[in-house]
Amino acid sequence: MRFRSHMDIALEEARAAAARGEVPVGAVVADASGRPIARAGNRTREMNDPTAHAEMLAIRAACAALGSERLTGCALWVTLEPCPMCAAAISFARIARLHYGAADPKSGGVAQGARVFSHPQCHHRPELFDGIAAAEAEALLSRFFAGLREGPAGREK
Amino acid sequence: MRFRSHMDIALEEARAAAARGEVPVGAVVADASGRPIARAGNRTREMNDPTAHAEMLAIRAACAALGSERLTGCALWVTLEPCPMCAAAISFARIARLHYGAADPKSGGVAQGARVFSHPQCHHRPELFDGIAAAEAEALLSRFFAGLREGPAGREK
Repeated sequence: MRFRSHMDIALEEARAAAARGEVPVGAVVADASGRPIARAGNRTREMNDPTAHAEMLAIRAACAALGSERLTGCALWVTLEPCPMCAAAISFARIARLHYGAADPKSGGVAQGARVFSHPQCHHRPELFDGIAAAEAEALLSRFFAGLREGPAGREK
Repeated sequence: MRFRSHMDIALEEARAAAARGEVPVGAVVADASGRPIARAGNRTREMNDPTAHAEMLAIRAACAALGSERLTGCALWVTLEPCPMCAAAISFARIARLHYGAADPKSGGVAQGARVFSHPQCHHRPELFDGIAAAEAEALLSRFFAGLREGPAGREK
């Protein structure tokens, strides 16, 4: 049996988010040894909380698990390029490595737009790995938004 | 008796945060009629949560109060220029007006650094009012950080 990668778990969370009617984005936090300590998918609609992006929920859960507001040495996997909110939270949490899937030209805040890690006001920059399982992450998002266009009125992430 | 302004309430939350050993920043959300519906101060240390900035807690509480992930027509008052995380959350929540006190050259994300509202990846920009009660907000922060330098080891916001 192939060991499931962290991004496989994040994709599983993204698919579960889609099944709940949420924009399909999933995230996983692993500790310095590689052990997953938190996983989450988007829950903005269910929780009536615009901050309940997958990354935010995973970071908050990981901090709760470790009893610390810093995740020093930890890594985060997320299926979509983080928005500026999540990118700044990743920096505050002192995440060591950020791995993401699809680029997000519309709302991303890492490689475009606000480019949160690229300013002197950002005091911790994770090591970046992009494009991981990007095709699968993009396909999930495309199917979700195509379904919204065909079905009831949708909303963006 | 003078009616307390929203920024007075935010400053009260900032002072309460300082008394808890948190970086003194406070925030208030008011609905379209001007009625305060949520107020909060920083609780990152207490909650072991790097996302628990005053603005985030106030937005999440206001969304919970209204049962909506959008705060359309609402206004936010905060004693310090929001960081990129909070600025993006303000945009996602569709806050109509953002009033803030002191500028934050070190970590701000509105008028400097990431300038979250200034990119096409930002899909809602609040009307901005800055410099409100800035001297008092700055004095609170200066006293807090001076105390940290004299006392036990501190930490940034």
